[in-house]
Amino acid sequence: MTYCVGIHVDAGLVLAADTRTSASFDDVRTHGKMHVFEKPGECVFVLMSAGNLATTQAVISALRRDIENPDAPFSLFKAKRLYEVADYIGRVLVANQAQVNKKAQHNSVSVEATLILGGQIAGGEAAVRLIYPLGNWINASPETPYLQIGESKYGKPILDRIIDRDTSLEDAARCALVSLDSTIRSNVSVGLPIDLAIIRDGELRVSQQVRIDEDTEFFADIREAWAEKLAAAVHTLPPFPWETTTGNA
Amino acid sequence: MTYCVGIHVDAGLVLAADTRTSASFDDVRTHGKMHVFEKPGECVFVLMSAGNLATTQAVISALRRDIENPDAPFSLFKAKRLYEVADYIGRVLVANQAQVNKKAQHNSVSVEATLILGGQIAGGEAAVRLIYPLGNWINASPETPYLQIGESKYGKPILDRIIDRDTSLEDAARCALVSLDSTIRSNVSVGLPIDLAIIRDGELRVSQQVRIDEDTEFFADIREAWAEKLAAAVHTLPPFPWETTTGNA
Repeated sequence: MTYCVGIHVDAGLVLAADTRTSASFDDVRTHGKMHVFEKPGECVFVLMSAGNLATTQAVISALRRDIENPDAPFSLFKAKRLYEVADYIGRVLVANQAQVNKKAQHNSVSVEATLILGGQIAGGEAAVRLIYPLGNWINASPETPYLQIGESKYGKPILDRIIDRDTSLEDAARCALVSLDSTIRSNVSVGLPIDLAIIRDGELRVSQQVRIDEDTEFFADIREAWAEKLAAAVHTLPPFPWETTTGNA
Repeated sequence: MTYCVGIHVDAGLVLAADTRTSASFDDVRTHGKMHVFEKPGECVFVLMSAGNLATTQAVISALRRDIENPDAPFSLFKAKRLYEVADYIGRVLVANQAQVNKKAQHNSVSVEATLILGGQIAGGEAAVRLIYPLGNWINASPETPYLQIGESKYGKPILDRIIDRDTSLEDAARCALVSLDSTIRSNVSVGLPIDLAIIRDGELRVSQQVRIDEDTEFFADIREAWAEKLAAAVHTLPPFPWETTTGNA
């Protein structure tokens, strides 16, 4: 499995992805699921993937091939609007899935992949989009400022409670790390290291990008602080009525 | 859907269940999923259910019928050991599912149910057991001190971080409420009110039982305090390296 989250706040975008892939319990590996395409000052795109790894790697290769080919009818760097980019990636995704499916019609392996695209093009607004296996997509919005793919349930409550459009980029990033960390603790199919990218609105490049592992000092600090704060929060919640009346507290 | 959790700590048991049932999005109702059977001083059992509501209501009726029938070969109040109770409930569950399935072989509705049993019999230890649709069951253990049924993922991280066998009963109960509340906020198929029961080890009765709704004062206090503490926890996590070097914090 996988867990990726893309957050859109007023100050910009936060993208975070785990790196664990598993074909089965005895075939667990580490593969990056975050792919950055940028032309600083002109455009920046971060793509994260869940689902069939061969499909997503084929999609990424196709996107890079089009960038390198000046004769390609379209590429990420030729786009004028972000919706064109989502449509284009959707088409590439559908074409790749169809090509593999044609060869193996009676195989039960799903070749589908789901993607999250975060990015901005000069003159346009930043956005986070979830691209479905059918090639269609939805936007993050002020009411739903984040989108998730993969094992999304464990890490959803913390996002639901914290993330608003006016959350600061760094708080959103800390929240994404807590969301990932909670998922990693509760589900073995999601694992370290974590890839984290921050795109400040208008900077038109990846402002911060880090790969975070167990020995990444600030992550160890955040993990430890979170565990302590959460335990303290539970211990200091208001008492039940019977605790105050019976002195059981 | 449903979300129920049973927690076994040294001091006793905490059982918590939501009350939302849904046959479809336009058939959402409130039904209790927590059922108490007790003979104070002799034995106490709390049963919680997820899955087909008709099946679980049939099981509960059968259990009550056996209690009321002095000639029944076995009943909850005739049991000497808790494993007998789990086996017996498992048999009743399997028999009920089989009976309905026999009548409707080509119907796609699942008549399966999954149960959590918490209880204690005089002279024995308290325990929490998860009874599967096949009638077999597993125990909570010192390493895995809680068991969940239904929509279990949203509320799992908080349990994984907090619950140990030496957690106090009231902290475990607060943690269960936070786990339920997080699930309710993130998934519309789980809803208020919440049924909460606490069984103190050796008391052989339900020590505390409450139905908690939005206007239950201590729950509103816990909810509000939790939201505040969580937000404060995120805001006071350690800074990223670039915040301290660039003064962005």
